[in-house]
Amino acid sequence: MPAYADMTTEELAAKRDELMREYEAIKAKGLALNMARGKPSSAQLDLSMPMLASVTTYEDCLAEDGTDCRNYGVLDGIPEAKRLMASMLDDDADHVIVFGSSSLNIMYDTMARCWSFGTLGHTPWSKLDEVKWLCPCPGYDRHFGVTEAFGFTMIPVTMTPDGPDMDEVERLVANDASVKGIWCVPKYSNPGGVTYSDEVVRRLAAMPCAAEDFRIFWDNAYGIHHLYDAPEQQDQLLDIRAACDEAGNPDRCFKFASTSKVTFPGAGISAMAASAANIADVKARMNPQVIGHDKLNQLRHVRFLRDAKGLAAHMSKHAAILRPKFELVDAKLTEALTEVGGCSWSKPRGGYFVSFDAPAGCAKRIVALAKDAGVTMTGAGATWPYKNDPADSNIRIAPSLPPVEELEATLDVFTCCVKLAYIEKLLRE
Amino acid sequence: MPAYADMTTEELAAKRDELMREYEAIKAKGLALNMARGKPSSAQLDLSMPMLASVTTYEDCLAEDGTDCRNYGVLDGIPEAKRLMASMLDDDADHVIVFGSSSLNIMYDTMARCWSFGTLGHTPWSKLDEVKWLCPCPGYDRHFGVTEAFGFTMIPVTMTPDGPDMDEVERLVANDASVKGIWCVPKYSNPGGVTYSDEVVRRLAAMPCAAEDFRIFWDNAYGIHHLYDAPEQQDQLLDIRAACDEAGNPDRCFKFASTSKVTFPGAGISAMAASAANIADVKARMNPQVIGHDKLNQLRHVRFLRDAKGLAAHMSKHAAILRPKFELVDAKLTEALTEVGGCSWSKPRGGYFVSFDAPAGCAKRIVALAKDAGVTMTGAGATWPYKNDPADSNIRIAPSLPPVEELEATLDVFTCCVKLAYIEKLLRE
Repeated sequence: MPAYADMTTEELAAKRDELMREYEAIKAKGLALNMARGKPSSAQLDLSMPMLASVTTYEDCLAEDGTDCRNYGVLDGIPEAKRLMASMLDDDADHVIVFGSSSLNIMYDTMARCWSFGTLGHTPWSKLDEVKWLCPCPGYDRHFGVTEAFGFTMIPVTMTPDGPDMDEVERLVANDASVKGIWCVPKYSNPGGVTYSDEVVRRLAAMPCAAEDFRIFWDNAYGIHHLYDAPEQQDQLLDIRAACDEAGNPDRCFKFASTSKVTFPGAGISAMAASAANIADVKARMNPQVIGHDKLNQLRHVRFLRDAKGLAAHMSKHAAILRPKFELVDAKLTEALTEVGGCSWSKPRGGYFVSFDAPAGCAKRIVALAKDAGVTMTGAGATWPYKNDPADSNIRIAPSLPPVEELEATLDVFTCCVKLAYIEKLLRE
Repeated sequence: MPAYADMTTEELAAKRDELMREYEAIKAKGLALNMARGKPSSAQLDLSMPMLASVTTYEDCLAEDGTDCRNYGVLDGIPEAKRLMASMLDDDADHVIVFGSSSLNIMYDTMARCWSFGTLGHTPWSKLDEVKWLCPCPGYDRHFGVTEAFGFTMIPVTMTPDGPDMDEVERLVANDASVKGIWCVPKYSNPGGVTYSDEVVRRLAAMPCAAEDFRIFWDNAYGIHHLYDAPEQQDQLLDIRAACDEAGNPDRCFKFASTSKVTFPGAGISAMAASAANIADVKARMNPQVIGHDKLNQLRHVRFLRDAKGLAAHMSKHAAILRPKFELVDAKLTEALTEVGGCSWSKPRGGYFVSFDAPAGCAKRIVALAKDAGVTMTGAGATWPYKNDPADSNIRIAPSLPPVEELEATLDVFTCCVKLAYIEKLLRE
């Protein structure tokens, strides 16, 4: 079979009719499938059930320093929880604050603090005429939602296989003091699965910024979320805070992580790591906001996951469940779309997503077709600020939630929709 | 014995020497006692231990509508948790949002939303030259900390036995549109133990305010925290939201509560109730901040406390532990200070505090003396905005944490310090 782009109009029309029959047959099945969000599957959640029974007696409720975790206090987290989260954040416990169950909430609050009060004595961003923010694309829709909430002007930045295009980033930050920061998912990025190269990390840390209070929001959401156990099949990420220290910009980054996709989304623990000055500033600002976060849940996590080694062993069990799904996505897309041409997709070694690039102008149509056939995808455009993908090309595939058989059915619907939308486009041109 | 105020200088000097010997003897004991914060005692925390084992199996993790509470989602709380918190808030579940473990955090965030984005389309308070806030005094230091963080001008308002002095409040809000709200702990207030009268509640709801976006922050922290079981010994509070509805100001109030002093401080659940318009506004603003709060902890609370009846039965157990402590405070103060004169204190029927008024100009000295003798009290002035009690008179007594024997020892130290400070003052005059 020739690639669609090489077909004659007649061949395309015949192919379209064939695909339309296939599509109508799928629709008739009345499916209700969902590949929209990066939610762990039920089998993954089952892995952490023993954690729920790990803190039930009085003795269980005592932290290693004797603190009764059933009572008020401890603003920044109990020592053992700091250590556990430090191992996830690739940092040391002294530079860590443990928060509640949501790292999104930490990022929002960190942004809100910079906006309301300023960071380390700098002018609050709310007092400025305009704040601009760099958004490597495709990226995470909820990140863009935070910067949109505060009215920032979001500037898309091209993602390369090594991370954000640093020539572009350096140019944007060099002379414009209203550019105050950048969103980064530096490892197994959402949705591209990209891990930033050492050079990209070093350039981010060292680049001259017109804004003295330029901040890197480093959401290391998938730092330990490998799909493969062998070290040579796992991506490695240079630590941004060490790089910032080395470059003489120690306060430039805030690092974030959570156990949402380690134990239970919405019922995990989350944490931030940053320079000593940033940590002191954040703690002073947290003081009127909260007395302390849920220490019993911190204890549950420590008792169940223990340390870096325990975390790695646990994540390996997640990988065993996720790996076949990611391999199935690649196999199904390869089988259905290689000959068709015009499409590309990521083959990540970790994280929660496959980034799919359809022929330009087709993404919205594909998602609409899928929806009509009973398959909910992440909205087309969601991976761009203001939901505006200028090429209308990128679609985020989230294979984690459905069981394998369902995922297979979902991908059959998806590839049928891709082909149909592509032919429609070619026939219009 | 005559009251101190009626003694001659010689009598006072002799008494001072006697008290100083008593004080030095106390100091020599090297005590380390704490009556500073409203923390539940270990015995109270023990009451909720069964809750920790109430959600351990897969079936336990399912909400009544089938939601798997181990995964992402449900921004505003699972239905059964909304109902439970509605019963605490004296409201209906449709008007409730369930949050994380801290009601202080909800209040801070609610203030931050008004400040950053405005409420219901009104101008964000951050855009105004000045925001003023009414602070009934004595009041809760952490409330004042929130309004101070946002740079509001805090205006102390006199507390009467029926609640804030409404003539004063009505005068302050009538013509000044920069007065944007008031802090209220309307039942068993912190620290005075006052429950607002029906008339005060109705006047707060109905008073004409120059600011259209005037907001009552109604922190019903002690709504079910009675010290006595007999209904005639329990205070009753008129519902502010119903009163606001009736007065034609439905959006004027935000109500807050938590289970911090029901189950575990810092590991409980918290909630807000408000008008439908306010709830919709808050939910829209929460959307970029968080995906959902800890639903497993919501389930734990529902399974353990069940409903209003279960809550009342549980609170009665707390009361049995707290009641003797409050009665001891009153007995010890009466015994030591009635003859001395010049002092007064509250005799609350619920809540966590006794409000103590020393002779003017003595509070700081009393707390300093107590500290030197090994007893930590809430800082003098803490019950006023900017920690500035103009009379230097009010001290908050928090009897909940220490066991009864320790509390007795603590009160002996305290009353000795009160007498000493009072005599020093009289000798100066």
